[in-house]
Amino acid sequence: MSYPLELVKKVNKSLEYYLSSMEGEPKILFDAMRYSVFSGGKRFRPILVILVAKSFKVSHDKVMPIACAIEFIHTFSLIHDDLPAIDNDKLRRGRPSCHIKFGEDIAILAGDALFSESLNLVLKQKKYSSDEVVLKLAEELSEATGTSGMIAGQVMDVISNSENVGKETLNFIHNNKTGKLIRVSVRCGAIVSNADNYQLKKFTEYGEHLGLAFQIIDDILDEIGEEKTIGKRTGTDKDLMKLTYPSYYGLKKSKEIAKKEIKLAKNSITDLNLPIQYLINIADFVLQRKS
Amino acid sequence: MSYPLELVKKVNKSLEYYLSSMEGEPKILFDAMRYSVFSGGKRFRPILVILVAKSFKVSHDKVMPIACAIEFIHTFSLIHDDLPAIDNDKLRRGRPSCHIKFGEDIAILAGDALFSESLNLVLKQKKYSSDEVVLKLAEELSEATGTSGMIAGQVMDVISNSENVGKETLNFIHNNKTGKLIRVSVRCGAIVSNADNYQLKKFTEYGEHLGLAFQIIDDILDEIGEEKTIGKRTGTDKDLMKLTYPSYYGLKKSKEIAKKEIKLAKNSITDLNLPIQYLINIADFVLQRKS
Repeated sequence: MSYPLELVKKVNKSLEYYLSSMEGEPKILFDAMRYSVFSGGKRFRPILVILVAKSFKVSHDKVMPIACAIEFIHTFSLIHDDLPAIDNDKLRRGRPSCHIKFGEDIAILAGDALFSESLNLVLKQKKYSSDEVVLKLAEELSEATGTSGMIAGQVMDVISNSENVGKETLNFIHNNKTGKLIRVSVRCGAIVSNADNYQLKKFTEYGEHLGLAFQIIDDILDEIGEEKTIGKRTGTDKDLMKLTYPSYYGLKKSKEIAKKEIKLAKNSITDLNLPIQYLINIADFVLQRKS
Repeated sequence: MSYPLELVKKVNKSLEYYLSSMEGEPKILFDAMRYSVFSGGKRFRPILVILVAKSFKVSHDKVMPIACAIEFIHTFSLIHDDLPAIDNDKLRRGRPSCHIKFGEDIAILAGDALFSESLNLVLKQKKYSSDEVVLKLAEELSEATGTSGMIAGQVMDVISNSENVGKETLNFIHNNKTGKLIRVSVRCGAIVSNADNYQLKKFTEYGEHLGLAFQIIDDILDEIGEEKTIGKRTGTDKDLMKLTYPSYYGLKKSKEIAKKEIKLAKNSITDLNLPIQYLINIADFVLQRKS
């Protein structure tokens, strides 16, 4: 199962291009944004956008603005999640977190700036897409990140622990905190490729199953993964008494659920009669990833 | 100089409507958003949008989505600015700041959520405006808040103090941290009313002068205003050794500059042959406000 590293390079190049075009004063803001954006991420979400577009024969360079916008949102969420008041993670991808490197004030504001600039990147999609499509993309992202998405999931995560919540809350957190941004990456890839309603529906199912599997594997890696490989402190979920799939279902059953979700993800798109092999491959990757 | 209180009521009603429409789980997130949005603000920015539109005979209800979007952005910026790592303000408009009331984690995320939902509100402007206009509004807001606007100004403010910076930095901070959002409120009011290029240019000048005057008066009030009237701790700029207009120019000269800026603001729009009396009134109000 090889990960599309050539696409990672292309995404990095575009992120570099967009960040460079924004640079100005004060320098520390751009340093902090750049530090967190280039901390060695897998670019999983932009790559999903690109691979879905590829299945419609839409070239990667035609979807880079929206793909990079989602990576900005993802990076913003990581910076804020790592803050002392939230998850208090001092390490991210093997390096000091943004607030350790630049201070808490700059980290909060660098996160805010990446979130703000993500809209700027969505609007750059105008170069390749109609006004209607760009507005639809903005709407999708707003829904996926706000009070009905990522941030709601993060708040629920913050106020919950394994003693006071059950399965329903666990699913709410996974579905919103991680799931919605993965789901919207897939949907944006389809929308920007002018997918029809049926195709969008099937890709959405793919994104939902993939997102859940991704988070279950994250939970499992936090429990059994190696800190060196993952690049951040592991076992933190247990320390924080967070409710996770392994804490609720046990490791074995969690792995089975993840496997089932990946199967469902793949099944969702197999009858579309589109070249989806790359999306099948990346789904298999999610199941086997070590970091 | 009377402030348009009937418009404050209308804006509050719309903010209430939009917030209610967003409510769900987890409750604490919506409680924190609502707490900060309804902390008795003047609604200065939405009212600017409405008054500019009024001068084009566009009714207030046709610009409420964009007006409320800007108030969401303003509230987000206040919540984050008040955080311990930034200005460490425990009081805001006479009540405990969001992080004192709900905890730092919820405050950070409630700010993020308001910022995210501001885009949702911009998109609701589609009900009254063309796709092209809505995209233009989104672009304006992205520019005004991000790395070329409000957040850049806030970062510069955080890293500067009166000993290590000069007039140029002072102007950078005022122009970006406060000025850009006031400027963009005026611009959005004009754009949503389909103003022509000349009108937009003149309104932009109005907004720029008004924004600078607004911030100078803010600096003056921090030095000589009464805590009870302002609703937050005063004298904090001095304590934090912040560079302000009074610390740089002295009180008397600062007041003169503010007065001159208000005059310039008013002059910018007098030859437009539009009914701008309300905009003249609100400019006079800025100069005379006590909180």
